[in-house]
Amino acid sequence: MRVVKTIGEMKTLSQSLRTEGRTISFVPTMGWLHRGHTALIERAREVSDVVVVSIFVNPAQFGPGEDYESYPRDIERDLRICREEGVDVVFVPSVEEMYPQGFSTYVTVEGLSERLCGVSRPGHFRGVTTVVAKLFNTVMPHKALFGLKDYQQQLIVKKMVRELNMDVEIITVETVRDEDGLALSSRNNYLSPAEREVARLIPESLKRAKELVEEGVSESARIIEEMKKVMDRKPGIVVDYINVCHPQTLEDVERVEDEALVALAVWVGRARLIDNLLIKKQQGGS
Amino acid sequence: MRVVKTIGEMKTLSQSLRTEGRTISFVPTMGWLHRGHTALIERAREVSDVVVVSIFVNPAQFGPGEDYESYPRDIERDLRICREEGVDVVFVPSVEEMYPQGFSTYVTVEGLSERLCGVSRPGHFRGVTTVVAKLFNTVMPHKALFGLKDYQQQLIVKKMVRELNMDVEIITVETVRDEDGLALSSRNNYLSPAEREVARLIPESLKRAKELVEEGVSESARIIEEMKKVMDRKPGIVVDYINVCHPQTLEDVERVEDEALVALAVWVGRARLIDNLLIKKQQGGS
Repeated sequence: MRVVKTIGEMKTLSQSLRTEGRTISFVPTMGWLHRGHTALIERAREVSDVVVVSIFVNPAQFGPGEDYESYPRDIERDLRICREEGVDVVFVPSVEEMYPQGFSTYVTVEGLSERLCGVSRPGHFRGVTTVVAKLFNTVMPHKALFGLKDYQQQLIVKKMVRELNMDVEIITVETVRDEDGLALSSRNNYLSPAEREVARLIPESLKRAKELVEEGVSESARIIEEMKKVMDRKPGIVVDYINVCHPQTLEDVERVEDEALVALAVWVGRARLIDNLLIKKQQGGS
Repeated sequence: MRVVKTIGEMKTLSQSLRTEGRTISFVPTMGWLHRGHTALIERAREVSDVVVVSIFVNPAQFGPGEDYESYPRDIERDLRICREEGVDVVFVPSVEEMYPQGFSTYVTVEGLSERLCGVSRPGHFRGVTTVVAKLFNTVMPHKALFGLKDYQQQLIVKKMVRELNMDVEIITVETVRDEDGLALSSRNNYLSPAEREVARLIPESLKRAKELVEEGVSESARIIEEMKKVMDRKPGIVVDYINVCHPQTLEDVERVEDEALVALAVWVGRARLIDNLLIKKQQGGS
């Protein structure tokens, strides 16, 4: 496994891999790898000759007062996991390498970036699209893999790729969950055992939303209210947002027709956790 | 000469040219080609195997009330010139091809884009960087050529390429001028013969700035004042801005030390014309 630290070296490597006719797949991460990441890596191995993983805690996607400083980091552990997973190249640039002094170029996807997490995290998705554009231009992958846990992120990245005419196929992979349903996230690391116990109500609430729709409930307000009731079973969850929205535009829908995305962000202690579920209304339902 | 109208066809063509190991140079234009453009094309032929010219009047770089609608267009004439100049591929996408419904992804270079022309044309350079990013991703050139008449534009494009880690070498070419010194521009087409006569005072004023610095004058305010006097020799020039600035940051300088950019935009009739001159202070001057 090759560990690459500079943009120049990564470009040269990717260029020569491409010249050899090898297909490159790319898994961008912020490290502290878990089974959500390894699911992406495994899929990447299936669809290409060479797997490149980047590990970079991207300051541009953190707002003031957010957890950039405390975000969990353990590069040795991450490299071991990558090695075990058969990753070919790990790209670990420094902040100075990615954002040299005077850096001021940004990629924004207007509209989608302002919804859901964009409300309480203004500038977050601008940071994401900017670093992803930079990473794509550096790694030059044929395919890039993103998890559906970050549903809004993959939607925005797909729109960026399409609208800037980038030559990367975006492949999405289902959210990986713990046994009790909690979506894997590096930020779960912030949870105390007691908080971890409370956090299981997050996937419970999504399950409840799905059941309600299956039972014929379609009003978004009612679904959200019932989800909140589930979260209120134990103290400790502070809701940032729960939205029932259109899966492509992320605009709120008043009722679930055909398919809707139920997306949420909540605080448990100092962890801001997100999760979502695509809900399909069954044909013949009320 | 091949004329390509879709992004898909252009990408396929560029990809196969690259696979064959041919170097591609690219001259992005808004058409109504003049000797400024052909100078770029000639240089492009010298530095690569294949020359691609795009002709696209980019709506994203025009503000409300600007001359998008009236911008001169003559695709048959442009194609004839390209053919005569030995261009290999002309890319002529439609507006719908470049900006499909719902388009909302933009590339911005903050700071530089807000100076000089960015003051009276907010959003202009965002339109430029967005279309250039799209064109680079579509044409996949090894080299791209820009004229120094649009000094701010080439500076911004270079910063975008560097900061987004794009793999394109930017080559700049000196401004081409008419016999009386007026910089060639498609917008010169708007000038009546009387206005054309007045417009020659624009390069005169730049020449005066150069003389002043050579005579030992270094205060920017004085230089600008003298340039305005030149333009006032005949009625008909309305100054948008005249700035003496740092050639890299475009920040105003109070006095010319070593090297400065004198940049201006003026209105002559309905034509907004820009021009600039890099002025070097001679060693040993006051």
